Amino acid sequence: MKTTILIHCPDQSGIISYVTGFIHKKGGNIIYIDQHVDKEAGVFFMRLESDFENNIPVVKNLKQQFEEELAIPYQMEWSLHLGSTKPRMALFVSKYNHCIYDLLSRFHSGELAVEIPFILSNHADLEYIATQFDIPFHHVPNSKQNKLNAESRQIALLEEYKIDFIVLARYMQIITPKIIELFPNKIINIHHSFLPAFAGAKPYHAAFQRGVKIIGATSHYVTEELDAGPIIEQDVTRVTHAHSIKDFITKGRDLEKIVLSRAVKLHIDRKTMVYNNKTVIFS
Amino acid sequence: MKTTILIHCPDQSGIISYVTGFIHKKGGNIIYIDQHVDKEAGVFFMRLESDFENNIPVVKNLKQQFEEELAIPYQMEWSLHLGSTKPRMALFVSKYNHCIYDLLSRFHSGELAVEIPFILSNHADLEYIATQFDIPFHHVPNSKQNKLNAESRQIALLEEYKIDFIVLARYMQIITPKIIELFPNKIINIHHSFLPAFAGAKPYHAAFQRGVKIIGATSHYVTEELDAGPIIEQDVTRVTHAHSIKDFITKGRDLEKIVLSRAVKLHIDRKTMVYNNKTVIFS
Amino acid sequence: MKTTILIHCPDQSGIISYVTGFIHKKGGNIIYIDQHVDKEAGVFFMRLESDFENNIPVVKNLKQQFEEELAIPYQMEWSLHLGSTKPRMALFVSKYNHCIYDLLSRFHSGELAVEIPFILSNHADLEYIATQFDIPFHHVPNSKQNKLNAESRQIALLEEYKIDFIVLARYMQIITPKIIELFPNKIINIHHSFLPAFAGAKPYHAAFQRGVKIIGATSHYVTEELDAGPIIEQDVTRVTHAHSIKDFITKGRDLEKIVLSRAVKLHIDRKTMVYNNKTVIFS
Amino acid sequence: MKTTILIHCPDQSGIISYVTGFIHKKGGNIIYIDQHVDKEAGVFFMRLESDFENNIPVVKNLKQQFEEELAIPYQMEWSLHLGSTKPRMALFVSKYNHCIYDLLSRFHSGELAVEIPFILSNHADLEYIATQFDIPFHHVPNSKQNKLNAESRQIALLEEYKIDFIVLARYMQIITPKIIELFPNKIINIHHSFLPAFAGAKPYHAAFQRGVKIIGATSHYVTEELDAGPIIEQDVTRVTHAHSIKDFITKGRDLEKIVLSRAVKLHIDRKTMVYNNKTVIFS
Repeated sequence: MKTTILIHCPDQSGIISYVTGFIHKKGGNIIYIDQHVDKEAGVFFMRLESDFENNIPVVKNLKQQFEEELAIPYQMEWSLHLGSTKPRMALFVSKYNHCIYDLLSRFHSGELAVEIPFILSNHADLEYIATQFDIPFHHVPNSKQNKLNAESRQIALLEEYKIDFIVLARYMQIITPKIIELFPNKIINIHHSFLPAFAGAKPYHAAFQRGVKIIGATSHYVTEELDAGPIIEQDVTRVTHAHSIKDFITKGRDLEKIVLSRAVKLHIDRKTMVYNNKTVIFS
Repeated sequence: MKTTILIHCPDQSGIISYVTGFIHKKGGNIIYIDQHVDKEAGVFFMRLESDFENNIPVVKNLKQQFEEELAIPYQMEWSLHLGSTKPRMALFVSKYNHCIYDLLSRFHSGELAVEIPFILSNHADLEYIATQFDIPFHHVPNSKQNKLNAESRQIALLEEYKIDFIVLARYMQIITPKIIELFPNKIINIHHSFLPAFAGAKPYHAAFQRGVKIIGATSHYVTEELDAGPIIEQDVTRVTHAHSIKDFITKGRDLEKIVLSRAVKLHIDRKTMVYNNKTVIFS
Repeated sequence: MKTTILIHCPDQSGIISYVTGFIHKKGGNIIYIDQHVDKEAGVFFMRLESDFENNIPVVKNLKQQFEEELAIPYQMEWSLHLGSTKPRMALFVSKYNHCIYDLLSRFHSGELAVEIPFILSNHADLEYIATQFDIPFHHVPNSKQNKLNAESRQIALLEEYKIDFIVLARYMQIITPKIIELFPNKIINIHHSFLPAFAGAKPYHAAFQRGVKIIGATSHYVTEELDAGPIIEQDVTRVTHAHSIKDFITKGRDLEKIVLSRAVKLHIDRKTMVYNNKTVIFS
Repeated sequence: MKTTILIHCPDQSGIISYVTGFIHKKGGNIIYIDQHVDKEAGVFFMRLESDFENNIPVVKNLKQQFEEELAIPYQMEWSLHLGSTKPRMALFVSKYNHCIYDLLSRFHSGELAVEIPFILSNHADLEYIATQFDIPFHHVPNSKQNKLNAESRQIALLEEYKIDFIVLARYMQIITPKIIELFPNKIINIHHSFLPAFAGAKPYHAAFQRGVKIIGATSHYVTEELDAGPIIEQDVTRVTHAHSIKDFITKGRDLEKIVLSRAVKLHIDRKTMVYNNKTVIFS
């Protein structure tokens, strides 16, 4: 059985050997190790893919042994993921269709090892796409008057469908602090600028106004501060004086969908870790 | 004789034909036309390379005729540059040698059609490079106490050597408003971030702190507001969590020198025009 | 009425002025000029967007005048396209859906000013996409035995629907010489390598075998020699030793669709000219 | 004491644990592990940075123990490098100065942890650069008549100076099979195309002729077959119809020097391994 273990802990001598020795002792074959030391913070990060011949009850046992033999003595925060368990992703959209189309066509072709129990939108415009891909669609309007009501319905759906993480595919609405707290580093947004430049509304207009020669897109985990969460992936494309704002938007669409899909894939494959509002990306 | 004409004026019907017809009538052969219309501002930009069989006195005549027949009726701001006249560039440096080395080796290999009458620095460290390339070097210290004195010496040198434009090759010092006024859109700086992100001091440290996945460099014309002038050229390179600030600085050096050299070459070839704090780049 | 004129002819002094003067004289306002001189071949290329206040009968007159006053004396090959006339594109596909999806979603969002009268495939697999976008689908099998029959049906369809150009969106079949002759420089293919490397079958396998660090995709006009026609657009992406052939294919899909869509847009906007098996791209 | 161990061996279960356990047992602290499995070939690759408190005699002991306890039982090919030992690099040049300048300025600024005991050239043109950087220069002409003589002098110099690897910085001469045999996967060349396209002479001319939209440069280990050795690093840049062959050469120079410097740095940092004419790059 394939497992992925993610660890971070204070950096200390011998830590790689302790972990690899433990896995070996428990009958696991290590397939791939990634590690990183943040020297400033003195923190060690590790991602470990292993193959165990054991069955699930044994793995549960393994969890307890890991906790006692490694996690407690070395002050680790850690998680273990079974390869057989696909994370469950909620897709929040509004009116733009390029990101949702790109994600769903990758999902459809088997590129993304994920479950998508539902799509939610504050408008009904994209319901037809949910229908095309045979995924339940929930229309949860989000006007000023019914914000609290919307939050309740969102939380109810997230709980009912046992959602692991949320993807905002140009959702264009603020996620409430309560939901952010329920899904820490588990809400992925796409912002249409190379952050931290042009945070906030209308970044293409601001980029045009400033006369930049390169525009970008940034996918990040959502935190309470707008567009300031840990960056997962960014990419850019060149523009010239001859491009209008409309051209920026068109070129930007191609960036947005690719950057968001890359970030979502990294998250699904459990290749992202977060510390001090920054990501470690084991790609 | 090869000439380059740069024009901007209110956009109006027929303007391309008026200009091309004028050149043809005066015995010029148009080699290359670039043009751009800023539709928001209603401004027309043109760059025109022509070959005249005439000699220099005739060209002077041409200037007057252009002024009367085109510039005044169509409210043009314009300039005419003889291909035989190389612009005169002053190079301001401090302690970093990568940008000056890159510029001078391109100059040495004939890539840049420019005169470099002198190199100026607030430190003596790089005098050896000026010596290597046989260019006069002026050490003008720039401490708090002697700022005014430094400005006077700088202006005296710029005037004495009949300088056309200034390149700040990681000069790291503020250029005084008086000099900026003397050289409007004629001072080229390299800033080590993808502006407008991380303007000001220590941009690599700020980029590291924010956890960006891409770093950049920006070459721009200097205006009174720090790092806010018209952008000439930008480029970027990918970074990961595994890169330290020192890595950012090393990777950034390669960006800085290439972006600055490209911007300088565009300026030398008179392929840049400025309007509303933005550039039109005819590349 | 907006028109685009494409010209190539022997290079000669004054040619830009002759053309721009003609347009002006006929009441046209030149919006945009692009030009290029191939100095080796001594050939001049021009693309000219103009706005005429006249109606269509006048434009027909214009064509005759252009022919007499410019094309004949200056030995021009030229064409005039009315902005109101969208080119008619046939889409040939096989079993892969990523390129057709990308093209049709851009078409759907108004990015491509084209008519798509039909989609043709040698398999029935992608008929559902034609249905989704409400475009007639023709299944024309292409096995060894019925190649001639297939060619006849293809030609009949191309004529019946008055097709201007053909896009091979991973069609994977050889286009017959007869059809290539009917559509010279009007059949656009996407090849999944940075040509001329890895022409022919299975380029990702060959790239993997060679151990390249960059893979690419190339869109080109189809000529009789396989994968050797004029290149319209290319792009690349980095790979490492850690990527499998399957990873190459997945990453390549993202390249293929973007490179093909860019090439198709350039063709639709009449920004491509072909000479000596090379393209001039006025982008 | 810092050490780097490079291993490749048949892939087998538990191999990571065996190695990491061994290091730990011998008092080493593992700083960084990279690994790769070539699934087709069934080969395991590993790069391991460790810190030992021990002194050099102990490390010699370590080598023997590693050989007995790991290398023999697991059929490893392996090497151990002390962090304190800089590899010794010979620089072969001809008349172009951009690559040598780039390498030496990085060397000078401390970016490359290498010794450069001498520079060799078949021409005397670049002796002044060797003088600038205070490195012995050997002029070894290489005309048809004295090829054997040249080879003897080259080998004598390589042995006298105890050279570990050779960098061909646009050397433009064929390296003899005898020298290739003496330095297997230890001669680094820069070829001015994105191999395998345009192998052999005059690649920029061939690229221009073919009308490509992207040009490249490739750094590879030299093998007997010309331009066919394992690729270490590649990069590309865009070109258009407007670029002449001379422009290709100028743009290419910037690529060549950066790609070669990256490859040399990877080799110096012992981050390259070679298998089946392909490289594993642990960057």
